[in-house]
Amino acid sequence: MNRVKVGIVGLGRLGRQHAENLAFRIPNCELSAVCSVILEEVEEVQKEWNIPYAYTNYDEMLKNKELDAIFIASPSGFHCEQIEKALNAGFHVFSEKPLGLYLEEALHVQEVVNMHKDQVFMLGFMRRYDKSYAYAKKKIEEGKIGEPFLIRCYGLDPAKAINGFMQFAKNNYSGGLFLDMAIHDLDLARWFLNAEAKQVWAIGGAYAYPDFSKLNDAETGAAMVKFEDNKMGIFVAGRNSAHGYHIETEIIGTKGTLRIGMVPEKNMVTVFDETGAVKECSDGFLERFEQAYLSEVEEFISCIRDNRKPNVTVEDGVLSTALGYACKESFETGELIMVQSPYHKLTNK
Amino acid sequence: MNRVKVGIVGLGRLGRQHAENLAFRIPNCELSAVCSVILEEVEEVQKEWNIPYAYTNYDEMLKNKELDAIFIASPSGFHCEQIEKALNAGFHVFSEKPLGLYLEEALHVQEVVNMHKDQVFMLGFMRRYDKSYAYAKKKIEEGKIGEPFLIRCYGLDPAKAINGFMQFAKNNYSGGLFLDMAIHDLDLARWFLNAEAKQVWAIGGAYAYPDFSKLNDAETGAAMVKFEDNKMGIFVAGRNSAHGYHIETEIIGTKGTLRIGMVPEKNMVTVFDETGAVKECSDGFLERFEQAYLSEVEEFISCIRDNRKPNVTVEDGVLSTALGYACKESFETGELIMVQSPYHKLTNK
Amino acid sequence: MNRVKVGIVGLGRLGRQHAENLAFRIPNCELSAVCSVILEEVEEVQKEWNIPYAYTNYDEMLKNKELDAIFIASPSGFHCEQIEKALNAGFHVFSEKPLGLYLEEALHVQEVVNMHKDQVFMLGFMRRYDKSYAYAKKKIEEGKIGEPFLIRCYGLDPAKAINGFMQFAKNNYSGGLFLDMAIHDLDLARWFLNAEAKQVWAIGGAYAYPDFSKLNDAETGAAMVKFEDNKMGIFVAGRNSAHGYHIETEIIGTKGTLRIGMVPEKNMVTVFDETGAVKECSDGFLERFEQAYLSEVEEFISCIRDNRKPNVTVEDGVLSTALGYACKESFETGELIMVQSPYHKLTNK
Amino acid sequence: MNRVKVGIVGLGRLGRQHAENLAFRIPNCELSAVCSVILEEVEEVQKEWNIPYAYTNYDEMLKNKELDAIFIASPSGFHCEQIEKALNAGFHVFSEKPLGLYLEEALHVQEVVNMHKDQVFMLGFMRRYDKSYAYAKKKIEEGKIGEPFLIRCYGLDPAKAINGFMQFAKNNYSGGLFLDMAIHDLDLARWFLNAEAKQVWAIGGAYAYPDFSKLNDAETGAAMVKFEDNKMGIFVAGRNSAHGYHIETEIIGTKGTLRIGMVPEKNMVTVFDETGAVKECSDGFLERFEQAYLSEVEEFISCIRDNRKPNVTVEDGVLSTALGYACKESFETGELIMVQSPYHKLTNK
Repeated sequence: MNRVKVGIVGLGRLGRQHAENLAFRIPNCELSAVCSVILEEVEEVQKEWNIPYAYTNYDEMLKNKELDAIFIASPSGFHCEQIEKALNAGFHVFSEKPLGLYLEEALHVQEVVNMHKDQVFMLGFMRRYDKSYAYAKKKIEEGKIGEPFLIRCYGLDPAKAINGFMQFAKNNYSGGLFLDMAIHDLDLARWFLNAEAKQVWAIGGAYAYPDFSKLNDAETGAAMVKFEDNKMGIFVAGRNSAHGYHIETEIIGTKGTLRIGMVPEKNMVTVFDETGAVKECSDGFLERFEQAYLSEVEEFISCIRDNRKPNVTVEDGVLSTALGYACKESFETGELIMVQSPYHKLTNK
Repeated sequence: MNRVKVGIVGLGRLGRQHAENLAFRIPNCELSAVCSVILEEVEEVQKEWNIPYAYTNYDEMLKNKELDAIFIASPSGFHCEQIEKALNAGFHVFSEKPLGLYLEEALHVQEVVNMHKDQVFMLGFMRRYDKSYAYAKKKIEEGKIGEPFLIRCYGLDPAKAINGFMQFAKNNYSGGLFLDMAIHDLDLARWFLNAEAKQVWAIGGAYAYPDFSKLNDAETGAAMVKFEDNKMGIFVAGRNSAHGYHIETEIIGTKGTLRIGMVPEKNMVTVFDETGAVKECSDGFLERFEQAYLSEVEEFISCIRDNRKPNVTVEDGVLSTALGYACKESFETGELIMVQSPYHKLTNK
Repeated sequence: MNRVKVGIVGLGRLGRQHAENLAFRIPNCELSAVCSVILEEVEEVQKEWNIPYAYTNYDEMLKNKELDAIFIASPSGFHCEQIEKALNAGFHVFSEKPLGLYLEEALHVQEVVNMHKDQVFMLGFMRRYDKSYAYAKKKIEEGKIGEPFLIRCYGLDPAKAINGFMQFAKNNYSGGLFLDMAIHDLDLARWFLNAEAKQVWAIGGAYAYPDFSKLNDAETGAAMVKFEDNKMGIFVAGRNSAHGYHIETEIIGTKGTLRIGMVPEKNMVTVFDETGAVKECSDGFLERFEQAYLSEVEEFISCIRDNRKPNVTVEDGVLSTALGYACKESFETGELIMVQSPYHKLTNK
Repeated sequence: MNRVKVGIVGLGRLGRQHAENLAFRIPNCELSAVCSVILEEVEEVQKEWNIPYAYTNYDEMLKNKELDAIFIASPSGFHCEQIEKALNAGFHVFSEKPLGLYLEEALHVQEVVNMHKDQVFMLGFMRRYDKSYAYAKKKIEEGKIGEPFLIRCYGLDPAKAINGFMQFAKNNYSGGLFLDMAIHDLDLARWFLNAEAKQVWAIGGAYAYPDFSKLNDAETGAAMVKFEDNKMGIFVAGRNSAHGYHIETEIIGTKGTLRIGMVPEKNMVTVFDETGAVKECSDGFLERFEQAYLSEVEEFISCIRDNRKPNVTVEDGVLSTALGYACKESFETGELIMVQSPYHKLTNK
């Protein structure tokens, strides 16, 4: 098979990074088209990287029959509709997380994905492709820590990004802390524990920025989840991490424990000065997950060429979203919430 | 004032360590009497360390008017009665934790303590006197991390001690995981957050040792606590830590975070071998808290000599016990539990 | 400018990795030709990656006028001759380290490079392009540690590679421990200290593998170097590192210290098991410097396109080689050796 | 045997700490006499701790026949004379390091010690009694790292103490960096490698404080030592460590490596703030070696009571001093120096 020709929609910060990777750093891949509603972005990228096609209209891009795959990096609210259109137009599809902002649309997308079984669909749960996370998964599968029964996940955005987020959140529906920030961790928990959630209690508050309360959201929050077989999940998500972007995951098993990112170190330098021995910390997701953002797309292209399915499924997107909504509901009501199967709900309607 | 003369009751593993410290390593202190129901223990210690008085009957020891203070290191079930008797006999009293196995007796002891305001009473929450914990407290008081709003506490006993514990637990009421293991952490949480608990949900199970389920106890458990002002507490307690005795505490504040014992390292040696770079871990509480066990008693003796009160109060014992019982109730019922003031309950009776 | 078309010579372990990177992961670059004396290697790579041209004769490849640049990853003994030929044929040249096995040929190459000032020449001192090393350099330039005055460099190959090395060394002239292993560190020292070496004393021996003595080489060795302005360099190189590939660099300045790779950790996972808290370590240079091997070549291609010179110069190659030879001489004679300028020597001839 | 009665001479910073330990924290020991030429010091300590005897004249203290042992914590220049007098007066003797400022007097003390074989003599190389160092020694004896062949020792005093030291050094002969600071490390090297030094080269300079050059001393220096069997020693000593008191020791063996104090952490707290993840560092020797200062004296008292000899011998003091002098000579002359046996020298006279 020849190089996979990809068209990308969305050229924001992360979208642009994906576009650059697709253009230059992914084996057997060609960035053939770029699309954004912002004309200047499209023109700039097309010119700088010499991209054959450029669009400001997504539907127009889907008419381009030279393309093999569509890469969706647009704002979250557009994901579901764009996934559906691209699949129906016959393309392989990669979509950034989340699958959708609402559970219903996520469920609908799942149906659409399942109707196009010959096309590759992949969701951007990139952490599974991070070398450290992949290594941890391998260790667990090899039995290194026995049976995993507790996972603790920290997903903390750097404090210096908080003003930008507040601005965004006042104008847009982000889904709130648990759906927006914790969604990666909810996916990781299901993946590492190999179990689904049964019950959740979520708490939190606004400690330094009272505006979060006005948005009915938490600045920092914690959720405890009871999974099948009494397995336990502890999730801390936040927007105000003084030392930087702190993504840490711990899996405790009957024979050992793994910690990933115990200190969210920026690199391998330790600075010794009058402060002490200092490990500087990650600035944000582009720095921390640079390699994972490449590897997940390498896997996507490789799946298309080899005609196989990626490890992340649309169901992972649906079930993580369902759990995220249960966290959100618990946080908003203060109650202990049963996590019902989204498929059950679907049937009931 | 001259040296403080102390009589100790209980010469088990921890009791004997305390006795040795009282005899040799605490300034201005003299171990004048030892007491245990096991005659051989008493005789051995008396002879080896040349202790003036030895008893197998606690009440007899309380008649010794040369003594200034009684140090209680007997099994938990005796604490309340022995504290009361010693206070009524006019002695200063140090008691190992817990204050009592039942909330009612703890409340009663509080009344007794309050009736003897001229005598020093101190509870063995030694972690507050560990250098690292004390340092963390100081940092917080200096505003280093802003306002603390989340605490995460791990209290994990080494796996190699599990058979011994199972044997003990089958024959004795230990209070269960949350009262027995987590009690130190519940005290620390109240101390660091400077807030009382409002609600708790606790989960857990038996993952490697099904016998815990028969005892209606958890091998490893987790509790999430909502404190006043939406502050959050996360507690993980367990009996099966593969790598050793893992006591870790994290306090997240609006401006920074402190972690104490992130890696429960045995000492300052790192071993590099075919395994990798290895930090060996603490064996157990006597190794990890060797210094704290000395410092708390130094403080007790110093309080007696200076006629002042220690930082740990009887109320700390009562409130931690109340929270421990709420965790236990939540674990047993699966419900979200309101943590009611124990004083409120008392009044209602 | 269009994509830079590259021909690579040498398809061994590192050569093949470079080839794959040139083919797929370097922006604005195209791998147009591959060359190796081993026919099967050439055929396999050409077919697998669909490379236009393939050669078993280096001189033939140099006749291909479609190429812009030659990438030399052949055995060290060929570097000088191949660099000279490629430059004379008008190509930009990237050569893996070392510049040459002998100081005289390195000096000769420098003359050749200087005669082709319009062509880019770059030497594979990739560590300068490793994110952590680059970060350390930036910190120093910003004055973070004041004036650097001591550097300590560890370059230790994993024990599990020792048999392979012994086999190689019995049949080939490797240059010995200080020229072969320590050469990267000697370059780093000059780069970080911004000073040239004046005197060196080197010691070492064969501790587990007596065969090193027969080869007149050291299994592990140490060199102490006095640089200009009394700056100090400490170098430990070895072939028998139990825990893996250990590359560590420390720079001490008047106001602080930087350590790079203090623990040569494989990734961000910490394993807690009965051994303790374990950081697994790097397997070898391809794992540790994966990113640096990409970034240096990105820089090479970028220099060609932008018509500018890379930070690593041919002089860096010459001076590091001269220092390596001084270490070797000291180790062999046991004497304290003056490091004479290689240019001085040249003039004297 | 009853409690060992000790008289201490020297009540400076370290002396006073020793005195307090002897008085209160050492089992089976009694501080019966204190001596200092400064009357106020003596009076203050006597009164505060209720010490039976106090002297301003050392010879007077030696006449007190109630004493069993003399503890010497006076300035270095007095050690030899005071050791000799105390031994001749029949006392057991503990002396702080160094044995003497000059090799000749150290050799003389050795003769005196050897003439009093029934008395315990111990030198304050307390690091051997630090838990981490003792643990490392045990690991080596168990064969954990195979045969040790390289030791690297850092002994760096905190920058904040530098002005105090400069003041002292301008008025007193300290012995210089290698004899004063590195002496502990020279002892450790001999202990861990189980080999004696053959050759040394030492370099160094004044980088931030030019006054060191005027004193003919180094602000920071490095020495490389060739030991018997080609074993290697690397020593870095300094007075200007920005982050604090940095004592680090690494022992590399044929099967593994041990590092002690890789990060000279103050305690088990990690601070996460805008700087990153910070381990604060040790302030100085009293903080870092608090436990070792107790344990060495416990061992001294225990040796007296059990009628046995401590692990540190007078010969360790002599041989470390001889090596320190060789470092000093190399630093001053710039030459590679043969380390001659001090006993050989003695014979030659």
